Amino acid sequence: MPVSSAPVLAPAAPLVSSLRSRFEAVRRQSVALCEPLLPEDTVMQPMLDVSPPKWHLAHTTWFWETFLLREYQPGYQVFHPDYAFLFNSYYNSLGSRVNRADRGTLSRPPLGDVYAYRTAIDAQMHQLLERADALPPAFRELVELGLQHEQQHQELLATDIKYILSTSPLAPAYLSEKLPANGAAGATLPAPSHLPPPATWLPVPGGVYRIGFEEEGFCFDNEQAPHDTYVADFELQNRLVTNAEYLEFMEAGGYRDFRFWLGEGWDLVQQQGWEAPLYWVLRDGGWHRFTHQGLQPVNPAAPVTHVSFYEADAYAQWRGCRLPTEQEWEIAARRFNPDKAAGTFLESCLFDPQPLAPDAAPDQCHQLLGDAWEWTYSAYHPYPGYQRAAGALGEYNGKFMLNQLVLRGGSCVTPESHIRLTYRNFFHADKRWQFTGIRLAR
Amino acid sequence: MPVSSAPVLAPAAPLVSSLRSRFEAVRRQSVALCEPLLPEDTVMQPMLDVSPPKWHLAHTTWFWETFLLREYQPGYQVFHPDYAFLFNSYYNSLGSRVNRADRGTLSRPPLGDVYAYRTAIDAQMHQLLERADALPPAFRELVELGLQHEQQHQELLATDIKYILSTSPLAPAYLSEKLPANGAAGATLPAPSHLPPPATWLPVPGGVYRIGFEEEGFCFDNEQAPHDTYVADFELQNRLVTNAEYLEFMEAGGYRDFRFWLGEGWDLVQQQGWEAPLYWVLRDGGWHRFTHQGLQPVNPAAPVTHVSFYEADAYAQWRGCRLPTEQEWEIAARRFNPDKAAGTFLESCLFDPQPLAPDAAPDQCHQLLGDAWEWTYSAYHPYPGYQRAAGALGEYNGKFMLNQLVLRGGSCVTPESHIRLTYRNFFHADKRWQFTGIRLAR
Amino acid sequence: MPVSSAPVLAPAAPLVSSLRSRFEAVRRQSVALCEPLLPEDTVMQPMLDVSPPKWHLAHTTWFWETFLLREYQPGYQVFHPDYAFLFNSYYNSLGSRVNRADRGTLSRPPLGDVYAYRTAIDAQMHQLLERADALPPAFRELVELGLQHEQQHQELLATDIKYILSTSPLAPAYLSEKLPANGAAGATLPAPSHLPPPATWLPVPGGVYRIGFEEEGFCFDNEQAPHDTYVADFELQNRLVTNAEYLEFMEAGGYRDFRFWLGEGWDLVQQQGWEAPLYWVLRDGGWHRFTHQGLQPVNPAAPVTHVSFYEADAYAQWRGCRLPTEQEWEIAARRFNPDKAAGTFLESCLFDPQPLAPDAAPDQCHQLLGDAWEWTYSAYHPYPGYQRAAGALGEYNGKFMLNQLVLRGGSCVTPESHIRLTYRNFFHADKRWQFTGIRLAR
Amino acid sequence: MPVSSAPVLAPAAPLVSSLRSRFEAVRRQSVALCEPLLPEDTVMQPMLDVSPPKWHLAHTTWFWETFLLREYQPGYQVFHPDYAFLFNSYYNSLGSRVNRADRGTLSRPPLGDVYAYRTAIDAQMHQLLERADALPPAFRELVELGLQHEQQHQELLATDIKYILSTSPLAPAYLSEKLPANGAAGATLPAPSHLPPPATWLPVPGGVYRIGFEEEGFCFDNEQAPHDTYVADFELQNRLVTNAEYLEFMEAGGYRDFRFWLGEGWDLVQQQGWEAPLYWVLRDGGWHRFTHQGLQPVNPAAPVTHVSFYEADAYAQWRGCRLPTEQEWEIAARRFNPDKAAGTFLESCLFDPQPLAPDAAPDQCHQLLGDAWEWTYSAYHPYPGYQRAAGALGEYNGKFMLNQLVLRGGSCVTPESHIRLTYRNFFHADKRWQFTGIRLAR
Repeated sequence: MPVSSAPVLAPAAPLVSSLRSRFEAVRRQSVALCEPLLPEDTVMQPMLDVSPPKWHLAHTTWFWETFLLREYQPGYQVFHPDYAFLFNSYYNSLGSRVNRADRGTLSRPPLGDVYAYRTAIDAQMHQLLERADALPPAFRELVELGLQHEQQHQELLATDIKYILSTSPLAPAYLSEKLPANGAAGATLPAPSHLPPPATWLPVPGGVYRIGFEEEGFCFDNEQAPHDTYVADFELQNRLVTNAEYLEFMEAGGYRDFRFWLGEGWDLVQQQGWEAPLYWVLRDGGWHRFTHQGLQPVNPAAPVTHVSFYEADAYAQWRGCRLPTEQEWEIAARRFNPDKAAGTFLESCLFDPQPLAPDAAPDQCHQLLGDAWEWTYSAYHPYPGYQRAAGALGEYNGKFMLNQLVLRGGSCVTPESHIRLTYRNFFHADKRWQFTGIRLAR
Repeated sequence: MPVSSAPVLAPAAPLVSSLRSRFEAVRRQSVALCEPLLPEDTVMQPMLDVSPPKWHLAHTTWFWETFLLREYQPGYQVFHPDYAFLFNSYYNSLGSRVNRADRGTLSRPPLGDVYAYRTAIDAQMHQLLERADALPPAFRELVELGLQHEQQHQELLATDIKYILSTSPLAPAYLSEKLPANGAAGATLPAPSHLPPPATWLPVPGGVYRIGFEEEGFCFDNEQAPHDTYVADFELQNRLVTNAEYLEFMEAGGYRDFRFWLGEGWDLVQQQGWEAPLYWVLRDGGWHRFTHQGLQPVNPAAPVTHVSFYEADAYAQWRGCRLPTEQEWEIAARRFNPDKAAGTFLESCLFDPQPLAPDAAPDQCHQLLGDAWEWTYSAYHPYPGYQRAAGALGEYNGKFMLNQLVLRGGSCVTPESHIRLTYRNFFHADKRWQFTGIRLAR
Repeated sequence: MPVSSAPVLAPAAPLVSSLRSRFEAVRRQSVALCEPLLPEDTVMQPMLDVSPPKWHLAHTTWFWETFLLREYQPGYQVFHPDYAFLFNSYYNSLGSRVNRADRGTLSRPPLGDVYAYRTAIDAQMHQLLERADALPPAFRELVELGLQHEQQHQELLATDIKYILSTSPLAPAYLSEKLPANGAAGATLPAPSHLPPPATWLPVPGGVYRIGFEEEGFCFDNEQAPHDTYVADFELQNRLVTNAEYLEFMEAGGYRDFRFWLGEGWDLVQQQGWEAPLYWVLRDGGWHRFTHQGLQPVNPAAPVTHVSFYEADAYAQWRGCRLPTEQEWEIAARRFNPDKAAGTFLESCLFDPQPLAPDAAPDQCHQLLGDAWEWTYSAYHPYPGYQRAAGALGEYNGKFMLNQLVLRGGSCVTPESHIRLTYRNFFHADKRWQFTGIRLAR
Repeated sequence: MPVSSAPVLAPAAPLVSSLRSRFEAVRRQSVALCEPLLPEDTVMQPMLDVSPPKWHLAHTTWFWETFLLREYQPGYQVFHPDYAFLFNSYYNSLGSRVNRADRGTLSRPPLGDVYAYRTAIDAQMHQLLERADALPPAFRELVELGLQHEQQHQELLATDIKYILSTSPLAPAYLSEKLPANGAAGATLPAPSHLPPPATWLPVPGGVYRIGFEEEGFCFDNEQAPHDTYVADFELQNRLVTNAEYLEFMEAGGYRDFRFWLGEGWDLVQQQGWEAPLYWVLRDGGWHRFTHQGLQPVNPAAPVTHVSFYEADAYAQWRGCRLPTEQEWEIAARRFNPDKAAGTFLESCLFDPQPLAPDAAPDQCHQLLGDAWEWTYSAYHPYPGYQRAAGALGEYNGKFMLNQLVLRGGSCVTPESHIRLTYRNFFHADKRWQFTGIRLAR
């Protein structure tokens, strides 16, 4: 039944030395992610949170054109007079634009024109990058921001493509049918002996700690200013919650007992009829999940994902625990200094968080980076001393700092070079289409 | 600015002798209509009334498969087990289906698969049609219905494509830039001397008349049973209302004076901010319309079109006239026996109603067939003696017989062989995306 | 449990000779209808179709003030400068007003002030009526219109009060607990032998008939002009459909079989979860109805009521019959010349349609006037020659002539002196809060 | 034009020694607050956040019945079997209930019955309180909770009544026309010399501080556990922002410049057309506000109120400042130890925040308690160590701990004995119908 799909992206080299080769690698990665898609797929917007892949390809290009070429290329002529209207995302400073809800009505320009747009802008950017040494430091900073921005949209491409394909009654697979050797969703499920060992609690003593970004290199403005914070003694689990553990909550009636839920979450459970994470369906008596490889049985050993904050919090309540704050998460992460190489990132082409090895060390903290974003019980508010930048880029982060929650650690579709311990992602509590998972605290 | 488009459909021969050659011509016509489109265009559903062109291509094919092949081809195996779910339009008798509002979420099957579906079904239909003589008369009747059904969707393709392209900020043209010689929307507007002569009133004496279909050949069930009806003396205008005449209504403040409007129409005018027919925009100080050739100046000599019933009725009220009933329309049309050849139909490839010649005879009735559907002030209710058919085809017409109004005469995108004097089209009073126009009565 | 209520209206004398005594009787009747209510009841608007009783009391008073006193009382000063804004219903000619949906937000003026308003206007009207002979005929016509208008609102008071009380979880009774001797909703249901005899079919020969109002006296503008119409042979049932008959439809699965339903009706059945007429609930294993006497067992002998057009039509389809057109209804009603005295009207204080006597003559047509409005399958459109009046009163009827259906014959809450054979009531097909019933044709 | 209203509540003694006399005083206060209302006013729910005053009167009574009488009065029989369904607010533990949105449809039980309910429950409570000494300590704690709960509803009564009366086109006054001597909204505005002095900045040194309730006496569970927190150096303004200061923001175009706004706030500004705080209207060329005394000129010296968090934050951004966190607010408040007697509370019967005296000391912190709730930029999340109580009362606070912001300090309609420095109130960022104001930090 799944429509066979084109071959998948070749892993992009995550670490390259020069700005120009990084530019090429990042730009190529976005295109590679869309190669398995048909033109018809690239214009779909089945819900408001999702943007059509064609739009992502064009918007990231518009970002380079607007913030780099128009600023630094003398005499630059815009590629198309209407593209600023079509592909501006949310910058009021840059004028009117297509409503977010109408991105899925844009059949034109067609995909071919968008690729031509990318090619033209890339050519101009190459010229500009060749003379980067002659440009002020602010130029290099903006190139860095453009790369980070495009990587954010690569994660969105991966999650939006999954959602788009999931809405088809034909349940088409994005990945070709050959499974990667370490595939998450193989036909053979792990024997119980291959389940990860029970989670352990890693203690962290209370006190005043310093958090926020103060290393060399790039960070988003929302990771600053670095500052002191006080936490009491706490403990964090050494790995993510698994599907097997989450199934216990489901089977214990967790979705039918209001006592574990925040009020707005309980309303959602009832209005939406939630009884499992997003993408889960009962088929032939067993739970399956829609994945980038089509519908696959749920792997009990893998981390649970595609849960809202409400589900993460209810699960924690049911276990008699709680979710960590973002301060606790970062303090613990710095303390346990995770091995980034052990995480699952976009470049793996797995598109699903991976089970922890059965022999994982109980006194280490696993899966902090990659695999699944971890909901924290911290509102996405400005850090002390935070200042919005002047101009349009002041709208990049600051205006979203309300009514959202911080998530930490990146996911299986985050580019590896994009994530840091201080990285603050943020979503509304009801969102489930990202690879969002659970780590418990107490 | 308009994206140049592929060459347009070659006119299909509207009158062919054999059922099989008619089948081929009609099927080819649907594909030809979609040739100027890109795959991205064919999946769009920018409003509920519009279906994606790809869906029309598949649904008409499903109709042949379901009502002909499954019934008459022994041992027929369906082409794809999910297509009945995907491409059933509204037949409860035939099971569950995609919500109408979700037709625009179907990226899969892609356009190529739908064309393959068409090819496969056509091949099977050819086999079946070769042995048509051996099949019962009901078979030929169903083939006829399938042809008429596909022609209805050709009209919808033409109007839905127009609406889809109109929503693009790029305003792409469907027709290539070479205008037909008698093009409706040329750059040079007619001089006032070329406006059609003032409309005349054609009188019809009151009495009992017979209406409804009782000739040989095909009709829809809603045109039956033929029956007597009484009308009082009335007069009908000998041509459609022109853009120039409608502009007088607009300029007299017709859209701002509640006295001419039905209550629900006035509410719409205010909620939607209507101040002109659909597709009209002010540009450079003059009214333009979006057409199949992109944005073009309004031609004052051409019939006004894309008006709702509410606008047609308000216009008539403002003129001190009224709209005809469908009985009056049919009685007058039979009396004046229109020259079908004079009308504008789909095969002309003009996609717009055409101006009446300045020397048109004042004592004849023009534009009754083709050019623009004519709103009547008659509810679409069953005729006396109407019976819904048994089975799924009983849902074809009967269940829509409420809260809609009858339109008569066909339009510039109706296939010429599809229309009759007794033909009853029907839309809700607020609809404007069809080629709907006005003829006055009193 | 039901809150005991104050004594009910004393029947108003329906036929009085002088305009002034009719004015007094009609005005008194409106107040009497509200006497069992508490102030809290009189401000409720639990759905858009319902207006608060206080609003009805004030609006009818505003009508006298606006159309009579302001026109004919020299130097008249309005009672309160804001009341035109508060109590204008839908007359665009008379300026802006409270949104219909917001009538239930008007706590002020309180009920006492509205009664004071009534008293003051009545006093002024008495003065004016005393010198009626010196005023032009148009004055008497407007008084007549004012009386008819207030009677229409008395029917609405009766139905809106029922709806308001029905939404209370306490299910309070409007009528005091003493049942009228011939009470509709007694505790003892009729024995099967007391069911009305099976309905008979009364034949009417086809031909040209004259319909519309052309007698002496008052009629609404929508009953004119009188005109000829043609009908084919038809038959009409000699009584209304009973609850017992309707229960057969319910028990045969009528609400679960799409084949009997118009498309928009079937959508409503599913969206709203309809499985019985409005006000029906299953209680202790049997069907009950909320009535003006609180919750009462369904009386199988009484006419079914509170059904939408969709339910009436589906019932008729299921019986293999149809609903009459309004032309057929009026032609039959004139032919069988109903005995008005036999009907149930507002003055009976029964507030429910009454069963037909078991010995009712099978060759006569019963229940044509009173008891329940009868849905026809006729759109509420203007009669031939209909003209809207000039000025504000032109908005009384004409602007509603679309998307509604004609109902005939009046109901158990219509004032007896208000109804005629030519009377055209109109509601949208989905409305159920009026006393609407079914009579079959074929 | 304002409907004159009955005399207003006599100030309740805020501090009484015995539980029983406090019970009587608090219960009497709720009734006194409703005395100026008419029965029609007491059933209104013009928006979802507002509950009808009658419902508040009944719900607070149900609280005593449910949590005290049913628990501690042996053999207690409920007053009415349906009242738990009608007057339960949000306790899932206590079964199904009227939807919040439907509270305004409850005409029954009438106001008189609700007063009878209050009288009956009070009588039972008196009996129970007489033997309070014989009951376990948990009883006294629950009585205390019931008193605090009823005081919360007194604040809601004051704000909901204001909103209800404001929606009337008649703009009725709640307070009788005699102004209190120190009236907030007098006809004579203060001369500029009477404006409060410019705000000063009070510095607080950074460090680890202890916050949360740890004194003797009552607190809500959300004020616990007391815990350490770290803050950096900060400064807080010594008084609330005034109307005069806020007008500068308005006149500088603050409502038209997206740069000062959070994204969701800017969307609201445009959708709702906000251009001033709630209740402000331009009349005769000057700003007026709807108050408990009807429409009154804006007093430039008084604190601005009825602003959303979005407006408070945009104002702070425009001033180059920010809002305090709740930790900062509490630390500063403890440090400056406010004089409670100086604040304006419910018992003053002023129903509006009062201007600061022109000679207020610049080195003291004013208006911390009373006058207007102060928005903080802190999410309403659980404190470290917070535990929801077992049973129904576990739903009192805990399930609301998301997507709301903490407000501190109480308002002019908070009962004086109800407020504390550790008190955490919480509302969604868009709410404006409470007396919400602004204090700046940096």
